[in-house]
Amino acid sequence: MKRSLGAKTLIYPVPVWVIASYDQAGKPNAMTASWAGVCCSKPPCVAVSLRKATYTYGCLMHRRAFTVNVPSQEQVAIADYLGVASGRREDKLAAAGLTAVRSSLVDAPYLEEFALILECRVIHVLEIGLHTLFVGEILDVKADPAVLDERGMPIVEKIRPFVYAPELQRYHRVAEVIAKAFDVDHGTR
Amino acid sequence: MKRSLGAKTLIYPVPVWVIASYDQAGKPNAMTASWAGVCCSKPPCVAVSLRKATYTYGCLMHRRAFTVNVPSQEQVAIADYLGVASGRREDKLAAAGLTAVRSSLVDAPYLEEFALILECRVIHVLEIGLHTLFVGEILDVKADPAVLDERGMPIVEKIRPFVYAPELQRYHRVAEVIAKAFDVDHGTR
Repeated sequence: MKRSLGAKTLIYPVPVWVIASYDQAGKPNAMTASWAGVCCSKPPCVAVSLRKATYTYGCLMHRRAFTVNVPSQEQVAIADYLGVASGRREDKLAAAGLTAVRSSLVDAPYLEEFALILECRVIHVLEIGLHTLFVGEILDVKADPAVLDERGMPIVEKIRPFVYAPELQRYHRVAEVIAKAFDVDHGTR
Repeated sequence: MKRSLGAKTLIYPVPVWVIASYDQAGKPNAMTASWAGVCCSKPPCVAVSLRKATYTYGCLMHRRAFTVNVPSQEQVAIADYLGVASGRREDKLAAAGLTAVRSSLVDAPYLEEFALILECRVIHVLEIGLHTLFVGEILDVKADPAVLDERGMPIVEKIRPFVYAPELQRYHRVAEVIAKAFDVDHGTR
């Protein structure tokens, strides 16, 4: 018999991604978002939900572009800071020691210090409630050569991503492989 | 200098959630989805994207309701099976030894064997491309008492969720806490 915990965003795991964009004046900004995920394979898309009150919301509405930057476990303090401070009041990239690089594909910067990034252009905006969902078409994935294997595929153990636990307000690390997908022995279930 | 990997859904981490629903005849069905995430705080909502070809797509269009069921690391083979097989051709719940429980809040079943579940009603449907994004308002979160602490909050270490690595097609476990959110020492960045 399950116990009711009420209507809340209490589910695990959710990602910790840093969304970078330009404001109207062309200043790069970044914020951490966890209400996000992949949402389509063709075209490849991610969905990122933002509160209207965030500085990044205005940037995305104006520029119609953003990048997703994946922080490593070593960058958890930076990611946490970018989720707390506002670009309206401070230069978060300078404060965090991050380098904005202009994307050649979309009107947004990516952050040099993060090993894996997506360059996205906004193709849908859906008002839900407190949050607005932005669907971004992924125009390219870029990665540091240091986190790629000999086939040019990213190595999760070098990217070292982490997840967020809503309500509990904790970050958990992503650890080792437990199974290959579409390949497990279903006879063992 | 980052290397271009092309336009693809190559980003980590994404969740592994089991979406349960009723078909038009009232038969419970379940499929695993990773193109999903939280998308709004008020009302609390999740977004789940499905291909039109899936059996679950028709169920959600018809019933306008679903549940999200969080598999544990011990249930990785079951989750993988539910992502490969189709409810159009087989009774996946019977094959996986799962028990459907009718939700009292939405027109969908949840799965007794999963420790944490969300009961959702569809409030938006957004066509993107190969995938259709369903926004589900979370009407309740339910959990097994065995995974709750003395305050009634879920214990991630008992739920033992895992994530999917797209393209690499591997499941990685979610491990220990590495930091508290909104609380890290930003002086260390």
